[in-house]
Amino acid sequence: MTKIGFIGLGIMGGPMAANLVKAGFEVTGYNRGRSKVDKLVEAGGRGAVSIAEAVREADIVITMLPDSPDVEAVVLGEDGVLAHAREGALLIDCSTIRPDVSREISGRIRALDAPVSGGEQGAIDGSLSIMVGGEAADFEAAKPVLDAVGGTIVHVGGPGAGQTVKAANQLIVAGTIELVAESLVFLEAHEVDTEAAIKVLAGGLAGNRILDRKAAAMVKREFTPGFRVELHDKDLGIVQAAAREAGVVIPLGAAVAQLMASLKAQGHGGLDHGALLKLVAQLSGRE
Amino acid sequence: MTKIGFIGLGIMGGPMAANLVKAGFEVTGYNRGRSKVDKLVEAGGRGAVSIAEAVREADIVITMLPDSPDVEAVVLGEDGVLAHAREGALLIDCSTIRPDVSREISGRIRALDAPVSGGEQGAIDGSLSIMVGGEAADFEAAKPVLDAVGGTIVHVGGPGAGQTVKAANQLIVAGTIELVAESLVFLEAHEVDTEAAIKVLAGGLAGNRILDRKAAAMVKREFTPGFRVELHDKDLGIVQAAAREAGVVIPLGAAVAQLMASLKAQGHGGLDHGALLKLVAQLSGRE
Repeated sequence: MTKIGFIGLGIMGGPMAANLVKAGFEVTGYNRGRSKVDKLVEAGGRGAVSIAEAVREADIVITMLPDSPDVEAVVLGEDGVLAHAREGALLIDCSTIRPDVSREISGRIRALDAPVSGGEQGAIDGSLSIMVGGEAADFEAAKPVLDAVGGTIVHVGGPGAGQTVKAANQLIVAGTIELVAESLVFLEAHEVDTEAAIKVLAGGLAGNRILDRKAAAMVKREFTPGFRVELHDKDLGIVQAAAREAGVVIPLGAAVAQLMASLKAQGHGGLDHGALLKLVAQLSGRE
Repeated sequence: MTKIGFIGLGIMGGPMAANLVKAGFEVTGYNRGRSKVDKLVEAGGRGAVSIAEAVREADIVITMLPDSPDVEAVVLGEDGVLAHAREGALLIDCSTIRPDVSREISGRIRALDAPVSGGEQGAIDGSLSIMVGGEAADFEAAKPVLDAVGGTIVHVGGPGAGQTVKAANQLIVAGTIELVAESLVFLEAHEVDTEAAIKVLAGGLAGNRILDRKAAAMVKREFTPGFRVELHDKDLGIVQAAAREAGVVIPLGAAVAQLMASLKAQGHGGLDHGALLKLVAQLSGRE
Protein backbone atom coordinates (compact mmCIF):
# COMPACT_ATOMS: atom_id res chain seq x y z
CA MET A 1 0.00 0.00 0.00
CA THR A 2 1.24 3.46 -0.89
CA LYS A 3 2.42 5.28 2.23
CA ILE A 4 1.87 9.03 2.30
CA GLY A 5 3.47 11.61 4.56
CA PHE A 6 1.30 14.73 4.72
CA ILE A 7 2.66 18.03 6.03
CA GLY A 8 0.30 20.98 6.58
CA LEU A 9 -3.15 20.01 7.85
CA GLY A 10 -4.88 23.40 7.62
CA ILE A 11 -8.16 24.48 5.98
CA MET A 12 -7.13 22.80 2.71
CA GLY A 13 -4.61 20.14 3.84
CA GLY A 14 -6.84 18.74 6.61
CA PRO A 15 -9.73 17.60 4.38
CA MET A 16 -7.31 16.53 1.61
CA ALA A 17 -5.48 14.21 4.04
CA ALA A 18 -8.83 12.87 5.29
CA ASN A 19 -9.87 12.08 1.71
CA LEU A 20 -6.61 10.18 1.17
CA VAL A 21 -7.36 8.07 4.27
CA LYS A 22 -10.88 7.44 2.93
CA ALA A 23 -9.38 6.30 -0.41
CA GLY A 24 -7.35 3.64 1.44
CA PHE A 25 -3.90 5.23 1.64
CA GLU A 26 -1.80 4.97 4.78
CA VAL A 27 -1.45 8.63 5.73
CA THR A 28 0.92 9.96 8.41
CA GLY A 29 0.28 13.64 9.07
CA TYR A 30 2.29 16.43 10.65
CA ASN A 31 1.29 19.97 11.54
CA ARG A 32 2.85 22.49 13.91
CA GLY A 33 -0.36 22.67 15.95
CA ARG A 34 -1.17 19.30 17.58
CA SER A 35 -4.98 19.72 17.38
CA LYS A 36 -4.97 19.38 13.59
CA VAL A 37 -2.91 16.20 13.84
CA ASP A 38 -5.45 14.80 16.31
CA LYS A 39 -8.22 15.50 13.83
CA LEU A 40 -6.45 13.42 11.18
CA VAL A 41 -6.00 10.58 13.70
CA GLU A 42 -9.75 10.73 14.42
CA ALA A 43 -10.33 10.41 10.66
CA GLY A 44 -8.26 7.21 10.62
CA GLY A 45 -4.80 8.56 9.82
CA ARG A 46 -1.58 8.44 11.84
CA GLY A 47 -0.08 11.37 13.70
CA ALA A 48 3.57 12.39 13.67
CA VAL A 49 5.41 14.72 16.08
CA SER A 50 7.99 15.82 13.51
CA ILE A 51 8.52 16.15 9.78
CA ALA A 52 11.07 13.37 10.06
CA GLU A 53 8.51 10.97 11.54
CA ALA A 54 5.90 11.89 8.91
CA VAL A 55 8.12 11.29 5.89
CA ARG A 56 10.62 8.61 6.96
CA GLU A 57 8.69 5.64 5.50
CA ALA A 58 6.63 7.52 2.93
CA ASP A 59 6.55 6.64 -0.77
CA ILE A 60 4.94 10.00 -1.44
CA VAL A 61 5.25 13.18 0.60
CA ILE A 62 2.57 15.87 0.20
CA THR A 63 3.08 19.43 1.42
CA MET A 64 0.25 21.98 1.72
CA LEU A 65 1.75 25.17 3.20
CA PRO A 66 1.00 28.91 3.11
CA ASP A 67 3.94 30.46 1.25
CA SER A 68 7.30 30.00 -0.50
CA PRO A 69 9.50 30.39 2.64
CA ASP A 70 7.39 27.77 4.46
CA VAL A 71 7.93 25.26 1.65
CA GLU A 72 11.65 26.06 1.45
CA ALA A 73 12.02 25.54 5.21
CA VAL A 74 9.94 22.34 5.37
CA VAL A 75 11.46 20.72 2.28
CA LEU A 76 15.04 21.99 2.17
CA GLY A 77 15.62 23.03 5.80
CA GLU A 78 17.44 21.20 8.56
CA ASP A 79 15.34 18.24 9.73
CA GLY A 80 13.16 18.76 6.63
CA VAL A 81 11.74 16.47 3.95
CA LEU A 82 14.97 16.29 1.92
CA ALA A 83 16.95 15.30 5.02
CA HIS A 84 14.60 12.50 6.09
CA ALA A 85 12.66 11.14 3.10
CA ARG A 86 13.56 7.78 1.57
CA GLU A 87 15.70 7.71 -1.58
CA GLY A 88 13.30 7.97 -4.54
CA ALA A 89 10.34 9.24 -2.55
CA LEU A 90 8.18 11.64 -4.60
CA LEU A 91 7.30 15.08 -3.22
CA ILE A 92 3.95 16.52 -4.34
CA ASP A 93 3.88 20.15 -3.28
CA CYS A 94 0.26 21.37 -3.34
CA SER A 95 1.15 24.80 -1.91
CA THR A 96 0.79 27.94 -4.03
CA ILE A 97 4.31 29.40 -4.24
CA ARG A 98 6.65 31.16 -6.63
CA PRO A 99 7.36 29.12 -9.81
CA ASP A 100 11.11 29.68 -9.39
CA VAL A 101 11.02 28.14 -5.89
CA SER A 102 9.21 25.10 -7.32
CA ARG A 103 11.91 24.80 -9.99
CA GLU A 104 14.65 25.10 -7.36
CA ILE A 105 13.07 22.35 -5.25
CA SER A 106 12.62 20.05 -8.24
CA GLY A 107 16.38 20.38 -8.81
CA ARG A 108 17.06 19.01 -5.31
CA ILE A 109 14.43 16.27 -4.88
CA ARG A 110 12.09 14.26 -7.14
CA ALA A 111 9.10 16.60 -7.06
CA LEU A 112 5.91 17.80 -8.70
CA ASP A 113 4.41 21.24 -8.17
CA ALA A 114 0.68 20.60 -7.86
CA PRO A 115 -1.19 23.67 -6.60
CA VAL A 116 -4.96 23.37 -6.33
CA SER A 117 -8.05 25.47 -6.88
CA GLY A 118 -11.56 25.00 -5.59
CA GLY A 119 -11.38 26.25 -2.02
CA GLU A 120 -12.28 24.59 1.27
CA GLN A 121 -15.45 23.07 -0.19
CA GLY A 122 -13.50 21.57 -3.08
CA ALA A 123 -11.00 20.11 -0.60
CA ILE A 124 -13.81 18.57 1.48
CA ASP A 125 -15.61 17.21 -1.60
CA GLY A 126 -12.38 15.90 -3.17
CA SER A 127 -13.24 17.88 -6.30
CA LEU A 128 -10.23 20.21 -6.50
CA SER A 129 -8.72 21.37 -9.76
CA ILE A 130 -5.03 20.44 -9.68
CA MET A 131 -2.48 21.98 -12.06
CA VAL A 132 0.62 19.83 -12.15
CA GLY A 133 4.13 20.72 -13.28
CA GLY A 134 7.00 18.21 -13.50
CA GLU A 135 8.10 15.06 -15.31
CA ALA A 136 5.41 13.01 -17.08
CA ALA A 137 6.51 9.77 -15.36
CA ASP A 138 6.18 11.40 -11.94
CA PHE A 139 2.74 12.72 -12.90
CA GLU A 140 1.66 9.17 -13.79
CA ALA A 141 2.99 7.90 -10.45
CA ALA A 142 1.15 10.63 -8.57
CA LYS A 143 -2.14 10.33 -10.47
CA PRO A 144 -3.86 7.71 -8.21
CA VAL A 145 -3.06 9.86 -5.17
CA LEU A 146 -4.25 13.09 -6.81
CA ASP A 147 -7.44 11.34 -7.96
CA ALA A 148 -8.37 10.94 -4.28
CA VAL A 149 -8.35 14.70 -3.66
CA GLY A 150 -9.16 16.26 -7.06
CA GLY A 151 -11.74 16.28 -9.82
CA THR A 152 -9.87 17.98 -12.68
CA ILE A 153 -6.21 16.96 -12.69
CA VAL A 154 -4.07 18.19 -15.56
CA HIS A 155 -0.35 17.94 -16.36
CA VAL A 156 0.42 21.40 -17.73
CA GLY A 157 4.21 21.25 -18.30
CA GLY A 158 7.62 20.88 -16.70
CA PRO A 159 8.75 21.92 -13.19
CA GLY A 160 7.11 25.21 -12.13
CA ALA A 161 4.38 25.06 -14.81
CA GLY A 162 1.77 24.11 -12.21
CA GLN A 163 2.60 27.24 -10.23
CA THR A 164 2.48 29.37 -13.38
CA VAL A 165 -1.03 28.12 -14.17
CA LYS A 166 -2.04 28.62 -10.54
CA ALA A 167 -0.80 32.21 -10.80
CA ALA A 168 -3.05 32.68 -13.86
CA ASN A 169 -5.87 31.09 -11.85
CA GLN A 170 -5.41 33.55 -8.98
CA LEU A 171 -5.29 36.46 -11.42
CA ILE A 172 -8.61 35.40 -12.96
CA VAL A 173 -10.26 34.66 -9.59
CA ALA A 174 -9.27 37.99 -8.01
CA GLY A 175 -10.23 39.90 -11.14
CA THR A 176 -13.58 38.14 -11.42
CA ILE A 177 -14.42 38.81 -7.76
CA GLU A 178 -13.64 42.49 -8.36
CA LEU A 179 -15.78 42.59 -11.56
CA VAL A 180 -18.68 41.00 -9.69
CA ALA A 181 -18.14 43.40 -6.75
CA GLU A 182 -18.21 46.45 -9.06
CA SER A 183 -21.35 45.12 -10.76
CA LEU A 184 -23.18 44.42 -7.51
CA VAL A 185 -22.44 47.85 -6.00
CA PHE A 186 -23.48 49.40 -9.34
CA LEU A 187 -26.77 47.45 -9.32
CA GLU A 188 -27.44 48.30 -5.67
CA ALA A 189 -26.86 51.99 -6.40
CA HIS A 190 -29.42 51.75 -9.23
CA GLU A 191 -31.85 49.92 -6.88
CA VAL A 192 -32.03 46.84 -9.07
CA ASP A 193 -33.10 43.48 -7.57
CA THR A 194 -29.61 41.97 -7.12
CA GLU A 195 -30.86 38.42 -6.53
CA ALA A 196 -32.70 38.41 -9.86
CA ALA A 197 -29.74 40.10 -11.54
CA ILE A 198 -27.26 37.48 -10.27
CA LYS A 199 -29.51 34.76 -11.70
CA VAL A 200 -29.70 36.28 -15.17
CA LEU A 201 -26.02 37.33 -15.25
CA ALA A 202 -25.03 33.75 -14.36
CA GLY A 203 -27.04 32.43 -17.31
CA GLY A 204 -25.27 34.42 -20.05
CA LEU A 205 -21.76 35.12 -21.32
CA ALA A 206 -20.99 36.83 -17.99
CA GLY A 207 -21.50 33.52 -16.17
CA ASN A 208 -18.72 32.48 -13.79
CA ARG A 209 -18.08 30.52 -10.57
CA ILE A 210 -17.92 33.71 -8.47
CA LEU A 211 -21.52 34.55 -9.43
CA ASP A 212 -22.49 30.92 -8.74
CA ARG A 213 -20.72 30.51 -5.41
CA LYS A 214 -19.83 33.84 -3.85
CA ALA A 215 -22.09 36.66 -5.09
CA ALA A 216 -24.98 35.89 -2.72
CA ALA A 217 -22.67 36.05 0.34
CA MET A 218 -21.03 39.22 -1.00
CA VAL A 219 -24.42 40.95 -1.31
CA LYS A 220 -25.09 39.98 2.34
CA ARG A 221 -21.64 41.30 3.37
CA GLU A 222 -20.71 37.84 4.70
CA PHE A 223 -16.93 37.72 4.49
CA THR A 224 -16.02 34.73 6.67
CA PRO A 225 -13.20 32.86 4.88
CA GLY A 226 -13.12 30.84 2.66
CA PHE A 227 -9.92 32.14 1.20
CA ARG A 228 -8.30 34.99 3.08
CA VAL A 229 -7.41 38.38 1.59
CA GLU A 230 -3.85 38.11 2.97
CA LEU A 231 -3.27 34.85 1.08
CA HIS A 232 -4.70 36.19 -2.16
CA ASP A 233 -2.55 39.32 -1.71
CA LYS A 234 0.48 37.02 -1.41
CA ASP A 235 -0.60 35.16 -4.57
CA LEU A 236 -1.03 38.39 -6.54
CA GLY A 237 2.55 39.26 -5.58
CA ILE A 238 3.57 35.96 -7.22
CA VAL A 239 1.47 36.83 -10.29
CA GLN A 240 3.07 40.25 -10.68
CA ALA A 241 6.62 38.94 -10.18
CA ALA A 242 6.07 36.13 -12.71
CA ALA A 243 4.48 38.52 -15.24
CA ARG A 244 7.36 40.97 -14.86
CA GLU A 245 9.87 38.11 -15.25
CA ALA A 246 8.27 37.18 -18.59
CA GLY A 247 7.77 40.81 -19.71
CA VAL A 248 4.00 40.45 -19.84
CA VAL A 249 1.82 43.50 -19.18
CA ILE A 250 -1.30 42.75 -17.09
CA PRO A 251 -3.35 45.95 -16.63
CA LEU A 252 -6.33 44.35 -14.85
CA GLY A 253 -4.11 41.99 -12.87
CA ALA A 254 -2.04 44.93 -11.62
CA ALA A 255 -5.15 46.96 -10.74
CA VAL A 256 -6.80 44.18 -8.75
CA ALA A 257 -3.50 43.50 -6.95
CA GLN A 258 -3.57 47.11 -5.74
CA LEU A 259 -7.17 46.76 -4.57
CA MET A 260 -6.42 43.52 -2.70
CA ALA A 261 -3.36 45.21 -1.14
CA SER A 262 -5.59 48.08 0.02
CA LEU A 263 -7.95 45.66 1.76
CA LYS A 264 -4.99 44.11 3.58
CA ALA A 265 -3.50 47.51 4.41
CA GLN A 266 -6.82 48.54 5.97
CA GLY A 267 -6.64 45.56 8.33
CA HIS A 268 -9.00 43.22 6.43
CA GLY A 269 -6.40 40.53 5.65
CA GLY A 270 -8.37 37.95 7.64
CA LEU A 271 -11.60 38.40 5.66
CA ASP A 272 -12.66 36.32 2.67
CA HIS A 273 -11.45 37.71 -0.69
CA GLY A 274 -15.12 38.45 -1.51
CA ALA A 275 -14.50 41.51 0.71
CA LEU A 276 -13.36 43.29 -2.47
CA LEU A 277 -17.05 44.31 -2.52
CA LYS A 278 -16.46 46.12 0.79
CA LEU A 279 -13.69 48.13 -0.85
CA VAL A 280 -15.78 49.06 -3.93
CA ALA A 281 -18.57 50.20 -1.59
CA GLN A 282 -16.04 52.23 0.43
CA LEU A 283 -14.56 53.83 -2.71
CA SER A 284 -18.12 54.73 -3.79
CA GLY A 285 -19.05 56.25 -0.42
CA ARG A 286 -21.67 53.56 0.15
CA GLU A 287 -20.50 51.81 3.32
CA MET B 1 -52.71 34.35 -32.55
CA THR B 2 -50.29 36.95 -31.21
CA LYS B 3 -49.02 39.14 -34.05
CA ILE B 4 -45.46 40.39 -33.74
CA GLY B 5 -43.78 43.24 -35.59
CA PHE B 6 -39.99 42.76 -35.54
CA ILE B 7 -37.63 45.60 -36.41
CA GLY B 8 -33.90 44.93 -36.78
CA LEU B 9 -33.08 41.57 -38.38
CA GLY B 10 -29.29 41.56 -37.92
CA ILE B 11 -26.92 38.99 -36.39
CA MET B 12 -29.09 38.77 -33.27
CA GLY B 13 -32.52 39.91 -34.49
CA GLY B 14 -32.56 37.60 -37.53
CA PRO B 15 -32.36 34.29 -35.65
CA MET B 16 -34.61 35.63 -32.86
CA ALA B 17 -37.35 36.46 -35.39
CA ALA B 18 -36.91 33.03 -37.00
CA ASN B 19 -37.35 31.36 -33.60
CA LEU B 20 -40.57 33.31 -33.06
CA VAL B 21 -41.88 32.01 -36.41
CA LYS B 22 -40.90 28.48 -35.37
CA ALA B 23 -42.81 28.91 -32.10
CA GLY B 24 -45.99 29.70 -34.08
CA PHE B 25 -46.17 33.49 -33.87
CA GLU B 26 -47.18 35.56 -36.89
CA VAL B 27 -44.04 37.65 -37.41
CA THR B 28 -43.79 40.63 -39.75
CA GLY B 29 -40.20 41.83 -40.05
CA TYR B 30 -38.57 45.04 -41.18
CA ASN B 31 -34.92 45.88 -41.75
CA ARG B 32 -33.27 48.65 -43.72
CA GLY B 33 -31.48 46.12 -45.95
CA ARG B 34 -33.97 44.05 -47.99
CA SER B 35 -31.86 40.85 -48.00
CA LYS B 36 -32.40 40.31 -44.29
CA VAL B 37 -36.15 40.69 -44.73
CA ASP B 38 -36.04 38.09 -47.50
CA LYS B 39 -34.29 35.70 -45.13
CA LEU B 40 -37.13 36.03 -42.61
CA VAL B 41 -39.67 35.40 -45.39
CA GLU B 42 -37.77 32.23 -46.35
CA ALA B 43 -38.02 31.16 -42.69
CA GLY B 44 -41.82 31.53 -42.86
CA GLY B 45 -42.28 35.12 -41.69
CA ARG B 46 -43.76 38.12 -43.51
CA GLY B 47 -41.74 40.97 -44.92
CA ALA B 48 -42.53 44.67 -44.54
CA VAL B 49 -41.19 47.61 -46.56
CA SER B 50 -41.58 50.11 -43.72
CA ILE B 51 -41.77 50.33 -39.95
CA ALA B 52 -45.41 51.34 -40.34
CA GLU B 53 -46.24 48.14 -42.24
CA ALA B 54 -44.38 45.99 -39.71
CA VAL B 55 -46.12 47.34 -36.63
CA ARG B 56 -49.60 48.44 -37.81
CA GLU B 57 -51.40 45.21 -36.81
CA ALA B 58 -48.95 43.98 -34.20
CA ASP B 59 -49.92 43.10 -30.63
CA ILE B 60 -46.26 43.13 -29.72
CA VAL B 61 -43.45 45.09 -31.37
CA ILE B 62 -39.87 43.90 -30.86
CA THR B 63 -36.89 46.11 -31.66
CA MET B 64 -33.30 44.81 -31.86
CA LEU B 65 -31.10 47.75 -32.90
CA PRO B 66 -27.44 48.79 -32.46
CA ASP B 67 -27.56 51.88 -30.25
CA SER B 68 -29.63 54.45 -28.33
CA PRO B 69 -30.11 56.90 -31.26
CA ASP B 70 -31.35 54.04 -33.49
CA VAL B 71 -33.98 53.07 -30.93
CA GLU B 72 -35.01 56.70 -30.41
CA ALA B 73 -35.40 57.19 -34.17
CA VAL B 74 -37.25 53.92 -34.81
CA VAL B 75 -39.59 54.19 -31.81
CA LEU B 76 -40.14 57.92 -31.34
CA GLY B 77 -39.24 59.30 -34.77
CA GLU B 78 -41.53 60.37 -37.58
CA ASP B 79 -43.09 57.30 -39.20
CA GLY B 80 -41.83 55.28 -36.22
CA VAL B 81 -43.37 52.69 -33.91
CA LEU B 82 -45.16 55.24 -31.69
CA ALA B 83 -46.75 56.87 -34.75
CA HIS B 84 -48.06 53.65 -36.27
CA ALA B 85 -48.55 50.98 -33.58
CA ARG B 86 -52.03 50.07 -32.36
CA GLU B 87 -53.29 51.57 -29.11
CA GLY B 88 -52.15 49.25 -26.30
CA ALA B 89 -49.51 47.44 -28.34
CA LEU B 90 -46.52 46.40 -26.20
CA LEU B 91 -42.99 47.34 -27.24
CA ILE B 92 -40.24 44.93 -26.20
CA ASP B 93 -36.92 46.64 -26.87
CA CYS B 94 -34.17 43.99 -26.93
CA SER B 95 -31.45 46.50 -27.91
CA THR B 96 -28.65 47.38 -25.49
CA ILE B 97 -29.02 51.12 -24.91
CA ARG B 98 -28.72 53.75 -22.19
CA PRO B 99 -31.05 53.10 -19.20
CA ASP B 100 -32.27 56.71 -19.30
CA VAL B 101 -33.35 56.30 -22.94
CA SER B 102 -35.29 53.16 -21.97
CA ARG B 103 -36.98 55.12 -19.18
CA GLU B 104 -37.83 57.96 -21.58
CA ILE B 105 -39.38 55.53 -24.07
CA SER B 106 -41.41 53.77 -21.38
CA GLY B 107 -42.89 57.17 -20.53
CA ARG B 108 -44.18 57.52 -24.09
CA ILE B 109 -45.36 54.01 -24.99
CA ARG B 110 -46.19 50.77 -23.13
CA ALA B 111 -42.73 49.21 -23.16
CA LEU B 112 -40.29 46.77 -21.61
CA ASP B 113 -36.53 47.08 -21.87
CA ALA B 114 -35.33 43.52 -22.48
CA PRO B 115 -31.66 43.40 -23.53
CA VAL B 116 -30.18 39.97 -24.08
CA SER B 117 -26.91 38.14 -23.52
CA GLY B 118 -25.62 34.95 -25.09
CA GLY B 119 -24.37 36.08 -28.48
CA GLU B 120 -25.19 34.89 -31.98
CA GLN B 121 -25.16 31.23 -30.91
CA GLY B 122 -27.58 31.96 -28.06
CA ALA B 123 -29.87 33.78 -30.52
CA ILE B 124 -29.78 30.81 -32.94
CA ASP B 125 -30.35 28.27 -30.16
CA GLY B 126 -33.12 30.34 -28.53
CA SER B 127 -31.16 30.15 -25.26
CA LEU B 128 -30.52 33.85 -24.61
CA SER B 129 -30.40 35.36 -21.14
CA ILE B 130 -32.94 38.19 -21.08
CA MET B 131 -32.92 40.90 -18.39
CA VAL B 132 -36.27 42.65 -18.33
CA GLY B 133 -37.19 46.02 -16.87
CA GLY B 134 -40.74 47.38 -16.74
CA GLU B 135 -44.16 46.72 -15.20
CA ALA B 136 -44.83 43.21 -13.84
CA ALA B 137 -48.08 42.89 -15.82
CA ASP B 138 -46.28 43.73 -19.07
CA PHE B 139 -43.56 41.18 -18.20
CA GLU B 140 -46.25 38.50 -17.77
CA ALA B 141 -47.78 39.48 -21.13
CA ALA B 142 -44.39 39.29 -22.83
CA LYS B 143 -43.26 36.05 -21.20
CA PRO B 144 -44.64 33.59 -23.84
CA VAL B 145 -42.91 35.61 -26.56
CA LEU B 146 -39.61 35.85 -24.67
CA ASP B 147 -39.74 32.10 -23.94
CA ALA B 148 -39.42 31.51 -27.69
CA VAL B 149 -36.07 33.31 -27.89
CA GLY B 150 -34.54 32.92 -24.42
CA GLY B 151 -33.50 30.36 -21.83
CA THR B 152 -33.06 32.47 -18.70
CA ILE B 153 -35.67 35.24 -18.57
CA VAL B 154 -35.76 37.38 -15.43
CA HIS B 155 -37.75 40.45 -14.42
CA VAL B 156 -35.15 42.56 -12.63
CA GLY B 157 -37.08 45.78 -11.82
CA GLY B 158 -38.89 48.81 -13.23
CA PRO B 159 -38.26 50.66 -16.52
CA GLY B 160 -34.53 50.83 -17.34
CA ALA B 161 -33.56 48.07 -14.87
CA GLY B 162 -33.02 45.60 -17.72
CA GLN B 163 -30.51 48.00 -19.30
CA THR B 164 -28.77 48.50 -15.95
CA VAL B 165 -28.31 44.75 -15.53
CA LYS B 166 -27.15 44.48 -19.16
CA ALA B 167 -24.58 47.19 -18.42
CA ALA B 168 -23.31 45.08 -15.48
CA ASN B 169 -23.28 42.08 -17.84
CA GLN B 170 -21.14 43.92 -20.38
CA LEU B 171 -18.77 45.09 -17.63
CA ILE B 172 -18.27 41.51 -16.44
CA VAL B 173 -17.94 40.09 -19.98
CA ALA B 174 -15.35 42.65 -21.12
CA GLY B 175 -13.42 42.33 -17.86
CA THR B 176 -13.44 38.54 -18.00
CA ILE B 177 -12.21 38.51 -21.61
CA GLU B 178 -9.36 40.82 -20.56
CA LEU B 179 -8.49 38.63 -17.52
CA VAL B 180 -8.43 35.54 -19.75
CA ALA B 181 -6.36 37.43 -22.36
CA GLU B 182 -3.79 38.52 -19.75
CA SER B 183 -3.61 34.96 -18.40
CA LEU B 184 -3.17 33.36 -21.83
CA VAL B 185 -0.38 35.75 -22.90
CA PHE B 186 1.25 35.18 -19.48
CA LEU B 187 1.05 31.38 -19.93
CA GLU B 188 2.36 31.57 -23.51
CA ALA B 189 5.30 33.69 -22.33
CA HIS B 190 6.10 31.02 -19.72
CA GLU B 191 5.78 28.31 -22.40
CA VAL B 192 2.99 26.50 -20.59
CA ASP B 193 0.62 24.17 -22.52
CA THR B 194 -2.31 26.61 -22.90
CA GLU B 195 -4.82 23.95 -23.96
CA ALA B 196 -4.19 21.96 -20.78
CA ALA B 197 -4.18 25.16 -18.74
CA ILE B 198 -7.57 26.29 -20.12
CA LYS B 199 -9.02 22.91 -19.14
CA VAL B 200 -7.82 23.05 -15.54
CA LEU B 201 -8.61 26.77 -15.10
CA ALA B 202 -12.16 26.12 -16.31
CA GLY B 203 -12.58 23.41 -13.67
CA GLY B 204 -11.84 25.60 -10.62
CA LEU B 205 -12.95 28.87 -9.05
CA ALA B 206 -11.56 30.69 -12.12
CA GLY B 207 -14.13 28.92 -14.31
CA ASN B 208 -16.20 31.14 -16.61
CA ARG B 209 -18.00 31.18 -19.97
CA ILE B 210 -15.13 33.01 -21.70
CA LEU B 211 -12.77 30.11 -20.88
CA ASP B 212 -15.47 27.67 -22.03
CA ARG B 213 -16.46 29.40 -25.27
CA LYS B 214 -13.82 31.88 -26.40
CA ALA B 215 -10.36 31.04 -24.99
CA ALA B 216 -9.54 28.40 -27.63
CA ALA B 217 -10.26 30.85 -30.49
CA MET B 218 -8.32 33.60 -28.70
CA VAL B 219 -5.22 31.36 -28.44
CA LYS B 220 -5.52 30.71 -32.20
CA ARG B 221 -5.90 34.47 -32.86
CA GLU B 222 -9.30 33.86 -34.48
CA PHE B 223 -11.18 37.12 -34.04
CA THR B 224 -14.10 36.79 -36.48
CA PRO B 225 -17.18 38.24 -34.73
CA GLY B 226 -19.20 37.15 -32.75
CA PHE B 227 -19.60 40.41 -30.93
CA ARG B 228 -17.71 43.34 -32.36
CA VAL B 229 -15.23 45.51 -30.46
CA GLU B 230 -17.04 48.69 -31.62
CA LEU B 231 -20.32 47.51 -30.07
CA HIS B 232 -18.66 46.51 -26.80
CA ASP B 233 -16.88 49.88 -26.77
CA LYS B 234 -20.30 51.55 -27.11
CA ASP B 235 -21.66 49.39 -24.26
CA LEU B 236 -18.73 50.28 -21.98
CA GLY B 237 -19.56 53.93 -22.59
CA ILE B 238 -23.06 53.16 -21.26
CA VAL B 239 -21.52 51.35 -18.26
CA GLN B 240 -19.27 54.29 -17.40
CA ALA B 241 -22.04 56.87 -17.79
CA ALA B 242 -24.43 54.83 -15.64
CA ALA B 243 -21.75 54.23 -12.97
CA ARG B 244 -20.90 57.94 -12.89
CA GLU B 245 -24.61 58.82 -12.64
CA ALA B 246 -24.91 56.61 -9.54
CA GLY B 247 -21.56 57.70 -8.06
CA VAL B 248 -20.13 54.20 -8.23
CA VAL B 249 -16.38 53.74 -8.69
CA ILE B 250 -15.45 50.87 -11.05
CA PRO B 251 -11.65 50.58 -11.29
CA LEU B 252 -11.56 47.41 -13.43
CA GLY B 253 -14.55 48.51 -15.52
CA ALA B 254 -12.83 51.81 -16.30
CA ALA B 255 -9.53 50.09 -17.16
CA VAL B 256 -11.09 47.58 -19.54
CA ALA B 257 -13.10 50.39 -21.19
CA GLN B 258 -9.79 52.10 -21.99
CA LEU B 259 -8.36 48.89 -23.43
CA MET B 260 -11.45 48.28 -25.59
CA ALA B 261 -11.27 51.92 -26.75
CA SER B 262 -7.62 51.40 -27.74
CA LEU B 263 -8.54 48.38 -29.88
CA LYS B 264 -11.16 50.50 -31.65
CA ALA B 265 -8.80 53.47 -32.02
CA GLN B 266 -6.25 51.17 -33.66
CA GLY B 267 -8.80 50.22 -36.31
CA HIS B 268 -9.89 46.88 -34.84
CA GLY B 269 -13.53 47.83 -34.18
CA GLY B 270 -14.74 45.12 -36.57
CA LEU B 271 -12.98 42.27 -34.77
CA ASP B 272 -14.53 40.05 -32.11
CA HIS B 273 -14.09 41.40 -28.55
CA GLY B 274 -11.78 38.42 -27.90
CA ALA B 275 -9.22 40.60 -29.72
CA LEU B 276 -8.39 42.07 -26.30
CA LEU B 277 -5.78 39.28 -26.39
CA LYS B 278 -4.24 40.97 -29.42
CA LEU B 279 -3.86 44.17 -27.39
CA VAL B 280 -2.26 42.41 -24.39
CA ALA B 281 0.19 40.73 -26.76
CA GLN B 282 0.93 44.11 -28.37
CA LEU B 283 1.45 45.81 -24.98
CA SER B 284 3.82 42.97 -24.05
CA GLY B 285 5.83 43.20 -27.29
CA ARG B 286 4.72 39.72 -28.32
CA GLU B 287 2.87 40.30 -31.60
